[in-house]
Amino acid sequence: MVIKIICVGKIRSNEIKILINSYLKKTNRFCPLEFVEIPDLKNSKNLSINQIKLEESKLIFNKLKNNEIIVALDENGEQLSSIDFSNFIKKKMITSTKTLVFILGGAYGLSKSLKDFSTFKISFSKMTFSHEIARLIAIEQIFRAITIINNHPYHNK
Amino acid sequence: MVIKIICVGKIRSNEIKILINSYLKKTNRFCPLEFVEIPDLKNSKNLSINQIKLEESKLIFNKLKNNEIIVALDENGEQLSSIDFSNFIKKKMITSTKTLVFILGGAYGLSKSLKDFSTFKISFSKMTFSHEIARLIAIEQIFRAITIINNHPYHNK
Repeated sequence: MVIKIICVGKIRSNEIKILINSYLKKTNRFCPLEFVEIPDLKNSKNLSINQIKLEESKLIFNKLKNNEIIVALDENGEQLSSIDFSNFIKKKMITSTKTLVFILGGAYGLSKSLKDFSTFKISFSKMTFSHEIARLIAIEQIFRAITIINNHPYHNK
Repeated sequence: MVIKIICVGKIRSNEIKILINSYLKKTNRFCPLEFVEIPDLKNSKNLSINQIKLEESKLIFNKLKNNEIIVALDENGEQLSSIDFSNFIKKKMITSTKTLVFILGGAYGLSKSLKDFSTFKISFSKMTFSHEIARLIAIEQIFRAITIINNHPYHNK
């Protein structure tokens, strides 16, 4: 199974970029993981929040393919422990050969239509994080889940 | 009011250090925020997890002073949204001149005695983060809370 993270917006912080790339490299030792970055919208200053979410959704929908399992990462989704999250991924690995796609919104989150379209909605926290830190958290949790599945000691150290 | 974060263990990642220092600097523009770092235990390889938590607790207890409001950051604590978290801090600012202390455990979390001793227990997530990322999340949420209290646009952008 391949894991894909679709996310919106450029990461500006060099430090976050380095940290994300390091988790990406480490995760790829166990499981193919791919980032799809939707570029920031142009002229977003002239758009309302709902328009921004709608335009971003269209760009995200364009990246989705048939036969993918879609998981929206949304603060109102189901809250899982890291162990439960690893079990969720493990189950998908066992029962499916499809690509598992995690979608992470931009600064204003995901549109309702995208959340409704997603088969699963998972929340990492009730709190709001900057979208740069949200992306770092997402990849750290996916890496952590993959190490738990592979009995690697990362989670227990 | 002064905010203090007591945390255990050195941060090894240079990138996380830079990010934390940047939030520390930005928060200090609004509110005095201080980090107290308890050094990693020596010879911890010879200790059980409970012994490590106990020894770390002793060192944390030594740093606590009278007249402080103690908040344990613990995954089983109360989950708040960022707005609720900012209201929690705001209320303490209005009703008290005491120092508000957030305690963040080491790799294995906080001891039961420290959690019992704390007046408040707050959880940022049901998930387990590396203690380096947990520290970054804590300071980002404190910065976010302070900007919300001060009507700074950080939370809404």
